[in-house]
Amino acid sequence: MAMTDTHLQIGALIFDGLDQMDLTGPFEVLSRVPNSTYRIFGKTTTAVRDGRGLVLKPDATLADAPPLDVLHVPGGTGQEGVMDDEDVLGWVRRQAQGARIVFSVCTGALILGAAGLLKGRRATTHWNSFHLLPLYGAIPVNQRVVIDDKFVFASGVSSGIDGALRVAALLRGDEAAQVIQLSMQYAPEPPFASGTLATAPEAVLAAARQSMGEITEKREQTARRVAQRLGIKAPA
Amino acid sequence: MAMTDTHLQIGALIFDGLDQMDLTGPFEVLSRVPNSTYRIFGKTTTAVRDGRGLVLKPDATLADAPPLDVLHVPGGTGQEGVMDDEDVLGWVRRQAQGARIVFSVCTGALILGAAGLLKGRRATTHWNSFHLLPLYGAIPVNQRVVIDDKFVFASGVSSGIDGALRVAALLRGDEAAQVIQLSMQYAPEPPFASGTLATAPEAVLAAARQSMGEITEKREQTARRVAQRLGIKAPA
Repeated sequence: MAMTDTHLQIGALIFDGLDQMDLTGPFEVLSRVPNSTYRIFGKTTTAVRDGRGLVLKPDATLADAPPLDVLHVPGGTGQEGVMDDEDVLGWVRRQAQGARIVFSVCTGALILGAAGLLKGRRATTHWNSFHLLPLYGAIPVNQRVVIDDKFVFASGVSSGIDGALRVAALLRGDEAAQVIQLSMQYAPEPPFASGTLATAPEAVLAAARQSMGEITEKREQTARRVAQRLGIKAPA
Repeated sequence: MAMTDTHLQIGALIFDGLDQMDLTGPFEVLSRVPNSTYRIFGKTTTAVRDGRGLVLKPDATLADAPPLDVLHVPGGTGQEGVMDDEDVLGWVRRQAQGARIVFSVCTGALILGAAGLLKGRRATTHWNSFHLLPLYGAIPVNQRVVIDDKFVFASGVSSGIDGALRVAALLRGDEAAQVIQLSMQYAPEPPFASGTLATAPEAVLAAARQSMGEITEKREQTARRVAQRLGIKAPA
């Protein structure tokens, strides 16, 4: 990856019902990358609401986006709404082709999958959608952040912060990323060890799974439909 | 702290130039607290921009806020803009009085200080403003999250996530907080050990300090002015 001093265009896709932290976690990091511009692009410039109601506003439309050096694709339950939207998927595909880095967070990886960008690629996503990756032709890798060529995949929601720091380091070197980390005092101390499938208490896992039951079923149906469209042989 | 099943009103103060993650980190956690409503309140309902340009929109004005169970006060460079604003400070003071939990993130603690709420209280804030706490009458405690009675203080920016999980546990018990943590897959893996003064490389610390030089000076002047107003004897 070239570490030049050229100005970098960093851009995120936004859509109704995204998970706001998939966007705002990386925004905190990537908006501090030296000599760069971070902007948010939507189908229209109308504000959207995240899955929990936070209002977020695109800076410009997809059509008005410049060629991006970094394409940032968040997820969230609203990801389902763009999985068959060729306006969005075509834009993602075109931007991904020219980008230095394609960076998905959470179920943003499934949007990349719907755009046909996961075939043969090592990838990760939110734990609750991890089993769907093979339907998009991806090789699931159970790590918090997975880097495959120019693709950077962060797993669930908050992992976008870790992923974005990796992206910042790829773009501008370790020291620049470390300055960003110190500025945002990122030395996390989670009060519980409940952040992964492997460490969460059983009752916690059951409750989390139940709360996501409906969207999980929907995502499974979508993944099978997309697999068919992309000609990917669904694993048994 | 009562753990009842009554509906909880959680509300954040918003202002121009806040640091968006001070708001959105806790939003991700607290908007998932069972049987609660999280809303954002501004002097007007006009959208503001965070210090890096992210557009955030209040749900309602300060005047239209209900009595809050949880008052969430973010910081950021824009915190300077409300330090002498009696409309805001009076609202913070009144809401804090009735709230079950007063939760500041980053330099949001300085806003609580300007409202006279830090006198004699153990507190923390962003590492770069930590030395100012005594000017507000506070006892600085160098921890990521400091809890003193009903006050919960998170240090810099990203610490709001850890603080909010503590708040969620106080409100609804550990298991509820653990479900939230799992939903957002919060098992952080920072790629560098550069998140604190104690661990950051020297060159990184120097660069971070320099980038914050101007705002630090401004905050020092403000803190001395407020100390005078509040009749707090500034330490030598």
